[in-house]
Amino acid sequence: MVVEVSAYGGDEALAQQLKAAGVSIGIDAVRALVAGVAGAPQGKQPDVWIELIAPDLPASLRDQLLALKAVIVAEVPEDPPLPDRVGALREELDSRGLDGFIVPRTDAHQGEYVPPRDDRLRWLTGFSGSAGLAVILADRAAIFVDGRYTLQVRTQVDTNLLEPKHLIDTPATKWIAEALPKGGKLGYDSWLHAENAVVALRKAVEKAGGSLVAVDDNPVDAVWAGQPAAPISPIVPHSLEFAGKSAADKREQIGAILRTDGCDAAVITAPDSVAWLLNVRGGDVPRAPMPLSFVIVHKSGAVDWFVDPRKLSPGLGAHLGNGVSVENVDAFPDALEQLEGQTVRVDSSSAAALVFDRLQAGGARISTAGDPCALPKACKNAVEIAGARNAHQRDGAALTRFLAWFEETAPSGALTEIEAADKLAAFRNEGELIRDLSFDTISGSGPNGAIVHYKVSSKTDRHMKRGELYLVDSGAQYLDGTTDVTRTIAVGTPTAEMKDRFTRVLKGHIAIATARFPEGTSGSQLDTLARHALWQAGLDFDHGTGHGVGSYLSVHEGPHRISKAPNSVALREGMIVSNEPGYYKTDDYGIRIENLVTVVPCQALAGAERKMFEFETLTFAPIDRELVDLSLMDGTEITWLDDYHREVLAKLSDGLDDDTRRWLEAATRPLAA
Amino acid sequence: MVVEVSAYGGDEALAQQLKAAGVSIGIDAVRALVAGVAGAPQGKQPDVWIELIAPDLPASLRDQLLALKAVIVAEVPEDPPLPDRVGALREELDSRGLDGFIVPRTDAHQGEYVPPRDDRLRWLTGFSGSAGLAVILADRAAIFVDGRYTLQVRTQVDTNLLEPKHLIDTPATKWIAEALPKGGKLGYDSWLHAENAVVALRKAVEKAGGSLVAVDDNPVDAVWAGQPAAPISPIVPHSLEFAGKSAADKREQIGAILRTDGCDAAVITAPDSVAWLLNVRGGDVPRAPMPLSFVIVHKSGAVDWFVDPRKLSPGLGAHLGNGVSVENVDAFPDALEQLEGQTVRVDSSSAAALVFDRLQAGGARISTAGDPCALPKACKNAVEIAGARNAHQRDGAALTRFLAWFEETAPSGALTEIEAADKLAAFRNEGELIRDLSFDTISGSGPNGAIVHYKVSSKTDRHMKRGELYLVDSGAQYLDGTTDVTRTIAVGTPTAEMKDRFTRVLKGHIAIATARFPEGTSGSQLDTLARHALWQAGLDFDHGTGHGVGSYLSVHEGPHRISKAPNSVALREGMIVSNEPGYYKTDDYGIRIENLVTVVPCQALAGAERKMFEFETLTFAPIDRELVDLSLMDGTEITWLDDYHREVLAKLSDGLDDDTRRWLEAATRPLAA
Repeated sequence: MVVEVSAYGGDEALAQQLKAAGVSIGIDAVRALVAGVAGAPQGKQPDVWIELIAPDLPASLRDQLLALKAVIVAEVPEDPPLPDRVGALREELDSRGLDGFIVPRTDAHQGEYVPPRDDRLRWLTGFSGSAGLAVILADRAAIFVDGRYTLQVRTQVDTNLLEPKHLIDTPATKWIAEALPKGGKLGYDSWLHAENAVVALRKAVEKAGGSLVAVDDNPVDAVWAGQPAAPISPIVPHSLEFAGKSAADKREQIGAILRTDGCDAAVITAPDSVAWLLNVRGGDVPRAPMPLSFVIVHKSGAVDWFVDPRKLSPGLGAHLGNGVSVENVDAFPDALEQLEGQTVRVDSSSAAALVFDRLQAGGARISTAGDPCALPKACKNAVEIAGARNAHQRDGAALTRFLAWFEETAPSGALTEIEAADKLAAFRNEGELIRDLSFDTISGSGPNGAIVHYKVSSKTDRHMKRGELYLVDSGAQYLDGTTDVTRTIAVGTPTAEMKDRFTRVLKGHIAIATARFPEGTSGSQLDTLARHALWQAGLDFDHGTGHGVGSYLSVHEGPHRISKAPNSVALREGMIVSNEPGYYKTDDYGIRIENLVTVVPCQALAGAERKMFEFETLTFAPIDRELVDLSLMDGTEITWLDDYHREVLAKLSDGLDDDTRRWLEAATRPLAA
Repeated sequence: MVVEVSAYGGDEALAQQLKAAGVSIGIDAVRALVAGVAGAPQGKQPDVWIELIAPDLPASLRDQLLALKAVIVAEVPEDPPLPDRVGALREELDSRGLDGFIVPRTDAHQGEYVPPRDDRLRWLTGFSGSAGLAVILADRAAIFVDGRYTLQVRTQVDTNLLEPKHLIDTPATKWIAEALPKGGKLGYDSWLHAENAVVALRKAVEKAGGSLVAVDDNPVDAVWAGQPAAPISPIVPHSLEFAGKSAADKREQIGAILRTDGCDAAVITAPDSVAWLLNVRGGDVPRAPMPLSFVIVHKSGAVDWFVDPRKLSPGLGAHLGNGVSVENVDAFPDALEQLEGQTVRVDSSSAAALVFDRLQAGGARISTAGDPCALPKACKNAVEIAGARNAHQRDGAALTRFLAWFEETAPSGALTEIEAADKLAAFRNEGELIRDLSFDTISGSGPNGAIVHYKVSSKTDRHMKRGELYLVDSGAQYLDGTTDVTRTIAVGTPTAEMKDRFTRVLKGHIAIATARFPEGTSGSQLDTLARHALWQAGLDFDHGTGHGVGSYLSVHEGPHRISKAPNSVALREGMIVSNEPGYYKTDDYGIRIENLVTVVPCQALAGAERKMFEFETLTFAPIDRELVDLSLMDGTEITWLDDYHREVLAKLSDGLDDDTRRWLEAATRPLAA
């Protein structure tokens, strides 16, 4: 239902209605709150925020609040042309005595997703990628992006205004060292850069004979008239039924870790760590159910939670219990300064430089041992694993319905990538406990499938064609688990080369799925198993083999991963990780086969001399048999795929209509047959 | 020939003879030089040092010099009992105001082998292992060893005097933090500890409320009456015929690296780096043809070589050329202090703490980017690779003669491990260009084979028995290359379990031997391929899969390796590395299959999209067919072994007598047949 702006009766009338309903919040505060709501992503339950004003409001009042939100959205002034935005920033910098400013695509939490308010890079430059950084000097400016975005950045930014740079070939530090005038003052927002990054920036700036200046109030905010407010989305309990471990037990666990390490406290700024620790969920950023807030956890297990109190949904206080002291988020920096003399653990790769500055200013001793929640959060408990199994079963059924529909629909040539993604989302949304997708669906046909992080738009959308491959990488956020799955499907008849490549990717996938490994083994050690069959043919893929996955949290989480990059974090029981080797032929096709797996103790293994682990596959959906070149598969690989398909059929059949079940029976029949 | 002490005519007579022969060195200097010679390992050419006094001396004079050496060896006083040595050290420490001292098993070069003079740990404690560290306090003392030596240390040291500790379970730093009295002064010899290690030690000592004190003159030396002199062994040119690249070109190469990195100079303390850079070889440590000395290389490519000039063999000056300035080794510390204001590259994991102390005292800026020779040295040039191929062919023939002899001799039950090792050495010594073994042969039968770094002694020696396995890991130093090879042989009929384990090890060996991998891949990434077949059965081995190997240099060299431990050094063309997976069943048997391989560009690979590398196997010797369980091998693995054996036969046949050739023909016949 679209709410019309014209339905709004005005501030005065709303104030009266609120008073009549017994709501004590003034109209200005209501406007501010609604602006925050408008500044948050709009999830599957877009009206639930009204609870934050008061529960059980009459329908007419609720309607007026929704209308107010529409009014506030409509009040946002139109953005000036891109060059004017950069021009306005330059004037602002000049007035502050700065010779330049760094604009990253980050918020104060260094997370993967940022709320609209922090999308400064997109507003300033037009670049909409998920990672990047601009440096604006008085006469020059540049934008730095990674290999995913080197083409896109040129179509989005004004290259007369901003020099596009590949951040590996020309890192910002290198460019700054050359471009910054001697004696120049380069500003940065110390909320938006991790401490590690600031150290590197300072080195570059000093090499150029300039100085790096921390700025409290971001100058982009000063010139961005229509900047969204900081997001306000209700924070709700994540019940024990899904979390499996009480927040009190988690706080005690972290307290014990700090005591063992000789730390007095830890500062937690990663939103997923805060959500895990307190057993809460929110909606301040897209695609991941997390509130933005900060935590100081003491070695006693007591927590100071710095959060906008307007986000707290009714009854949350009781859920939090006594060990959690709620403080206004604005009080966070001063609280850091009050940790004088304490040894405080902080993660230097994710915590903002401001955190370090304030801790040091206050006289705390800093331990950079990392986020103490990261490892406990990654090792899912039995309840979370059971939830993951359930979520994956529902998710697999939705994906299977899509695949059956796709096989029928795609060969006609009428289907587009966007339509396919929408249909898949529709199937998922019919499932239980779903709250959102876990990331924007990657729906790539033909050459678009070869773009690893492809995000379909109306500009790039294309129709499925016979003889092409279609790659769909998607997932969802369920209350009981987060999913992430990729399937590659032949539209019509695939070429022999496509089958060769697909089969090599599949062999890599199976090598990971069947690997047994001793306690202490890291994902880095397993990575090559996923690539070996490709390497033998002179092929490879340029992304990691697997990332950690949260439990109704971020679809990307650490500290473990399966990748070429050295990583010494051992895989531990209960960790969930993706298994997603791929192959990409530029301008032609892309292949990826992704299941989520979880680390389990090896089933009875006669004669085992070590404590061994293996993976249990969580994802169940058919793998396209038409793309398998049997001549490349050995007996154990064929057995694995047949066994997997038998399990897919057994797990998903009950939830499917007759037609889809029949399709699945055919799609999962043994290869050998 | 044993030279009798009684043959010596006395100092006066020798002085006369020297004078008569036109030698200008006085008798005291001759005595000092000969003491140095006696303090060096005695290689295959034990008399060549006489050249250092003068070339072409008359036979009678040479005989007197050899007799003098025998006299000097005989003059060494007998060592007091072990407790008295520790007691004497404690008195010495007390007189210096120290509360304790650290005695590592290292020299000033942090190498694997140390000259007799630096074997302080063995002298003080009786422990003869190749790695370890003792901490002597006034009332307590402990010795720290790794897993290889936890049993051995208890048989060698007086455990009432020294607490034996496993250095992983109880690191010295942890023990010191508890045992050192508050305010205690713990001394260390800053020549004998790498800078990295001192940082960790200082932390531990300060945690205990004590202080770590650098000591110039080692107090162990003060109480060790019979301590050998610093070794003097002739330094000779390593000719271009084997080195493949002139020292002048190498110096220019390192100079260019320093210029690129913005360094003014580098300090090189690793003996193999110095030997590589200057194209010289020596004999100051056992089993590796290296002189002990130090180098400062300037960004111009000019080298200051700090070396005992008495070691320089006649004509070496001409070989070195103009770019090398020879300085007395004693001048090295002061020279470090003269690098004021320069940026100096040093390897903090191998250079002595003293180097850092002196550089800092002198006002140099330190760059810890590592030893600039390490990578160029590891990437062998075409001449070195050709030399390696030749050396391995001769070495393989010697090993094959041994294996044929072994198969005939061992089943009788009369053969011992020491006899086997001696026989193998005798076969090797008949080959051309051999200078030494490259390490003490590991000759382990039955349960002794399960001891990874087994060193046979008269105490542990045992007879070969039917139904057992015999593991022999050996290698040699040839002028044209260094070899290292392990074979495991069934004596009589092996059990099904032995065959299963051997075949899994073989599968790992073949997986490495046949791996193709893209440019940029490190040995850490390949390691799992060597373990996968073992892991699937719940088995593993507790050592690395492969180490770098020098070219007529140390049998262990970096910076690359194949191991579980994260290592980001990419494998590059020309690197030589061992491929040696294993399996060890304690108290029963050990299995290891080791060949050396070198990194080569992938042979023509249709459709390759990346720059790919693979390994060329350098080692040729039969692998025991009797131990292969064919049911575990797939077709490509069988093909590899048959192809390998065909090549073994083709390469080695010419150098063999008829009987051995016939034996080899049988030993290398195809598996499938």
